[in-house]
Amino acid sequence: MTQQQLGNFITLAAVGLFAVSGVLAGLSDESDIFSLVVFGVVSALGGGTIRDVLLGAPVFWINDLAYVWVAIGASIFAFFVYRSAYRAQTLLLYLDAAGISLFTVQTINKVLGLDFPPIVALIMGVITGIGGGLIRDVLTDRPNLLMRKELYATPILLGGIVYLALLQVAPNAEFAGLFAMIFIFAVRSAAIHWELSLPRWLTANTPSRGVQQ
Amino acid sequence: MTQQQLGNFITLAAVGLFAVSGVLAGLSDESDIFSLVVFGVVSALGGGTIRDVLLGAPVFWINDLAYVWVAIGASIFAFFVYRSAYRAQTLLLYLDAAGISLFTVQTINKVLGLDFPPIVALIMGVITGIGGGLIRDVLTDRPNLLMRKELYATPILLGGIVYLALLQVAPNAEFAGLFAMIFIFAVRSAAIHWELSLPRWLTANTPSRGVQQ
Amino acid sequence: MTQQQLGNFITLAAVGLFAVSGVLAGLSDESDIFSLVVFGVVSALGGGTIRDVLLGAPVFWINDLAYVWVAIGASIFAFFVYRSAYRAQTLLLYLDAAGISLFTVQTINKVLGLDFPPIVALIMGVITGIGGGLIRDVLTDRPNLLMRKELYATPILLGGIVYLALLQVAPNAEFAGLFAMIFIFAVRSAAIHWELSLPRWLTANTPSRGVQQ
Repeated sequence: MTQQQLGNFITLAAVGLFAVSGVLAGLSDESDIFSLVVFGVVSALGGGTIRDVLLGAPVFWINDLAYVWVAIGASIFAFFVYRSAYRAQTLLLYLDAAGISLFTVQTINKVLGLDFPPIVALIMGVITGIGGGLIRDVLTDRPNLLMRKELYATPILLGGIVYLALLQVAPNAEFAGLFAMIFIFAVRSAAIHWELSLPRWLTANTPSRGVQQ
Repeated sequence: MTQQQLGNFITLAAVGLFAVSGVLAGLSDESDIFSLVVFGVVSALGGGTIRDVLLGAPVFWINDLAYVWVAIGASIFAFFVYRSAYRAQTLLLYLDAAGISLFTVQTINKVLGLDFPPIVALIMGVITGIGGGLIRDVLTDRPNLLMRKELYATPILLGGIVYLALLQVAPNAEFAGLFAMIFIFAVRSAAIHWELSLPRWLTANTPSRGVQQ
Repeated sequence: MTQQQLGNFITLAAVGLFAVSGVLAGLSDESDIFSLVVFGVVSALGGGTIRDVLLGAPVFWINDLAYVWVAIGASIFAFFVYRSAYRAQTLLLYLDAAGISLFTVQTINKVLGLDFPPIVALIMGVITGIGGGLIRDVLTDRPNLLMRKELYATPILLGGIVYLALLQVAPNAEFAGLFAMIFIFAVRSAAIHWELSLPRWLTANTPSRGVQQ
């Protein structure tokens, strides 16, 4: 498997994970299968689409329809498996965690390969990782994951920095990428499971909206 | 009237319809005429703008300002006619239905003309048809039409497929396009009027958010 | 200081102001510093990014990272200064007012310099001025400023027209730009302070949502 093929495979996996998360996000409404497929496909392809438009690169799914078919297929699969699973919110969070870990590392790879400097690669990694989920949450009218207390931007940002650092010293890029993906997924999963957040001095110290003092 | 002129005319009509729907969507707030014109223009031009950016094509309204003037004019017209019509929500739905039927078919035409495969044309048709309305509903803080029970993505998707099939067999493209536009508008209008939805096994079987069991 | 340098400086200032407004907008949640930096950066760079994508121009911050560093720096600064300042909503409005006045005028300059007609420059000025704030308000789940009664689109639109008119007659472009920026900021600030709105016949005459008659 060449590096290019590996990259495509990782992207396909991330697309599938985000498609399922998009369907799960829409399930708490009365949406029908086709509306949910739209949510799934837009969540799956949204982050990478923003990345490619910003880079002035061809949008990744227009010339390789495998991404579209995986997004549609994963959405239909998710609909039939989870259509009655209105408590699948925790599953959604873990799928999102896996999706961002794959997208962030794969995007950093792609942007470095286009000869942009590391800081641009890092920013694009964060945008791509978070982007699909933000679109998903806006369209399904949910508070997005950045607005919650548990670590979200933190593992993505740290994982991206770890990856860029490892690329300087690691024996090969595959190892560095695998490590960074596991790092992001593990930290984010721990944050979901144990409701980890940053210490108070790094957290907004304000009452939630609607709470009056 | 050449085919190009016909296409431009259909797009102009769709732009005008969506502009009015954007103003109606914003009316239930305290917005003033200029804010409402922004909502109208963004709703009218948003879907086609996303399409053109994804395709890497020049954004359709930048080099032909007729679209902008129609969007502005239709928005101002809608403001003065409907500014007290806070119950115009049903009208909004029918205008949206007409707009999506025109945009979907016209976009499929445009994308096929750029030599993309039919599946890309279909996806772009759906994105363009739905896109302006999604932006409208996000900016005016309304639940979007995909989140409702009545058929919405379904007629657009079916209509697009019908159109692509008809193009293979119909005596001329104009007839096929007219048929597909009427098909989408008729099915969606029926869904609005009789609150048609897909059968239960194709609908999310979950309680609405906020309803606890 | 050349005209190009002056333009870059104005954009940097607008980026910093919008970054702070993005952090303030997110503060009323439980977000941590990195999430708030994402809100700050996206608010700061969002409007100009949309503009450049629509124009088919290179996105302004990709080839000049100073904008990114200012956005990140201003966001971190704002976090530590305002993290307990959950009543900073009025400050947010004035920062937004200053940001839109700089972005609108600077964008009109940029678009005219690319040889687009004045009406395209005006539309892009409005989109860029308003765009970052719209993204900010959508992501932080706040009603956007167009939905409020106080003048918002009005000063931007009027200021843009005033600027385009002054460019025809003013002794130099710098003077015209300075005047237009002060004009937009002054009118918008007056609207915030005295809750100025357009006369009733130019305002949607409908009850707020949720209010039944």
